[in-house]
Amino acid sequence: MKLLFIVMDGLGDRPIKELDDKTPLEYAHTPNMDKFASMGMNGLLHVISPGVTPGSDTAHLALFGVDPYKYYTGRGPFEAAGIGLEVKPGDIAFRTNFATINSEDIITDRRAGRIKKGTKELAKLLEKMEIDGVKILLKAGTEHRAALILRGDGLSDKISENDPHVEGKGPLEFKPLDDSPEAQKTARILTSFVMKAKTLLSNAELNISRESQGLPPANYLLIRGAGKAPKVPNFEEEYGLESACVAGGGLYKGIGRMLGMKIIEDQRLTGGTTTDLSAKFDVALETLEKFDFVFTHVKGTDNFSHDGNPVEKMKFIEKIDEELYRFLPENFKNDLVVMITGDHSTPCSFKDHSADPVPVVIYSPDCRVDKVEKFGESYATDGNLGHLLGKHLMGIVLNELRLVHKFGA
Amino acid sequence: MKLLFIVMDGLGDRPIKELDDKTPLEYAHTPNMDKFASMGMNGLLHVISPGVTPGSDTAHLALFGVDPYKYYTGRGPFEAAGIGLEVKPGDIAFRTNFATINSEDIITDRRAGRIKKGTKELAKLLEKMEIDGVKILLKAGTEHRAALILRGDGLSDKISENDPHVEGKGPLEFKPLDDSPEAQKTARILTSFVMKAKTLLSNAELNISRESQGLPPANYLLIRGAGKAPKVPNFEEEYGLESACVAGGGLYKGIGRMLGMKIIEDQRLTGGTTTDLSAKFDVALETLEKFDFVFTHVKGTDNFSHDGNPVEKMKFIEKIDEELYRFLPENFKNDLVVMITGDHSTPCSFKDHSADPVPVVIYSPDCRVDKVEKFGESYATDGNLGHLLGKHLMGIVLNELRLVHKFGA
Repeated sequence: MKLLFIVMDGLGDRPIKELDDKTPLEYAHTPNMDKFASMGMNGLLHVISPGVTPGSDTAHLALFGVDPYKYYTGRGPFEAAGIGLEVKPGDIAFRTNFATINSEDIITDRRAGRIKKGTKELAKLLEKMEIDGVKILLKAGTEHRAALILRGDGLSDKISENDPHVEGKGPLEFKPLDDSPEAQKTARILTSFVMKAKTLLSNAELNISRESQGLPPANYLLIRGAGKAPKVPNFEEEYGLESACVAGGGLYKGIGRMLGMKIIEDQRLTGGTTTDLSAKFDVALETLEKFDFVFTHVKGTDNFSHDGNPVEKMKFIEKIDEELYRFLPENFKNDLVVMITGDHSTPCSFKDHSADPVPVVIYSPDCRVDKVEKFGESYATDGNLGHLLGKHLMGIVLNELRLVHKFGA
Repeated sequence: MKLLFIVMDGLGDRPIKELDDKTPLEYAHTPNMDKFASMGMNGLLHVISPGVTPGSDTAHLALFGVDPYKYYTGRGPFEAAGIGLEVKPGDIAFRTNFATINSEDIITDRRAGRIKKGTKELAKLLEKMEIDGVKILLKAGTEHRAALILRGDGLSDKISENDPHVEGKGPLEFKPLDDSPEAQKTARILTSFVMKAKTLLSNAELNISRESQGLPPANYLLIRGAGKAPKVPNFEEEYGLESACVAGGGLYKGIGRMLGMKIIEDQRLTGGTTTDLSAKFDVALETLEKFDFVFTHVKGTDNFSHDGNPVEKMKFIEKIDEELYRFLPENFKNDLVVMITGDHSTPCSFKDHSADPVPVVIYSPDCRVDKVEKFGESYATDGNLGHLLGKHLMGIVLNELRLVHKFGA
């Protein structure tokens, strides 16, 4: 028995007038999701807890049975893992931007003109740096994005950022946020690193060439989102499932990587509104041949929600649904469990995450079928999963996979 | 107001093709249970927690409001209590088999030919033994089964078993599972006890006679399931209910005994598929005259489930139902609350426990009646108890019994 776990980011919504007072999911024509709903068990999922609005990071931890209150230490470690840095417990990790600073020490572009190419080479210039015995790892991500890790003893994540968050101002000082010598040491190292980086980057061929073309040079590092990498449980050891992650967005790959999932690398796997959904679900199907658990993440639903665009969100859900024919029960020999949900609601009217629960459907070949006929927020109310918490999901699907660890005898 | 609490072991199931895709309980003709369902409150019970598969021991603790995560220390203490040993907090208790060992120290029969008679006398030979100031109590149960208690200071349950779990091998050594002097002492005492027991048992008249008849002698003790007896809450003190246990299986009587319930002894009270159900519910009815709370346990449902026999399970449920006429509201003066549920699901397709919730019905004369008309897994979805946890049951029925402890003023 294998498990396909599909997460549509920001799936949940609220009634939309122009959609006949239905949510985008309810309004969408989704025959495949409805088939899973009518043959499976439905419920309303409070990913963290009723009334709690999850971030995408904390939500995914909760969906995978990892208590975010215990393990979430900030975005940095997950972004760093997503970019492909190997994050070790105890590392201090940061989100980083390549930015542009002028000769008067004013940040003139927080994203170095959304630089498209060359940041990998720039990051290489800063490779293998070590300050006060602390190793510094920088890795470039997409566009201006990068991640930074400090690895060594006596460090702290109680440290302010240097990003002024507006242009036309100088970078901020790194300040220790408590009185510990660890925070002071971390501030000292970051300050020294950013200065050295500035010199090295300013003299880089790429930046000299950019300047000569009138493009903003990527000559400075803005560093934020400090987090001490937690020792999260290993998904495979915890559940006995060989697990893979089919996602585009760095954060989702990062969470998968930190939990020990195999990250499927394929350039068609992107995380946006133009993602090749057919390719993504092709890869998911292939991955199911080799893995017990395939987490498949689709990001576009959330993007349309943040833009406040319910019609496009609805159409995007329909496009996702079209691709799900691959996983219908008739194509499997009673050996595939399918779970579909969202990581949180992002109502188009909010243009941001909300605490509204998300619908969840779990289909397995001999599950207790409930009377729900369609996949959607209001339909799920009648499901036999009732209201459930994200932290209970893994136990419930392990039960469907018959991977039962009895408590007691 | 009195409470009858009926637990059908392993009651919950999954849809069965040959039963029109209904569960055995849904398919069964159960007019009496349905009457309670239609006049009462229904819900789906997660005995421990959603997604957690309970053992019978942990499940019953949870049903009685005793947190198994806090109090469950292994099967030994409950089995020992079930066999009739008085288990005191701090005792180290074990499940024990009378077994057969040959002159080359090979276990040739782990159950001494499922010896039927004489184990009480054999246990007597080992009575009142004391090693290093530790009292050793052995009591025979049914067939080859017995329970062992070590009582004294400086003992530990961090100790391996001597049962090789296969025949044709020698017994294993007792090994301390940690570095504590307590575990070492316990290993020493068990080793010494088993050696002494072997000598005494080998020379026992019964065994000499068995050998001369070609029967395997019960000349060795295999000891497993170490658990330090917890100090569980006293049911009567906790809830103010004079409580009695009407059960056949040792485990269920053991749990009742440890919680301080009166164990009703009657040889007709057995725990199997051929149990005299009429007698069991007669005894339950009589017991209700003298006690406020009567826990009545029926085991056969679980046995048929482990055998993967949904039709017999369904018929057995019908037989139970027939006996419930005794407790219908018309036979009482608005002074009986009836609660019916299972301790866990044992789907016939799994042939083992699962994490699926079990239906529960609570009838009391003036409860809030919901729209559920029949007792069963899918019907319970519409009940007004919703999804609930085992640990909440006692509070809910105490409310029906009007034994309300206000929290606050």
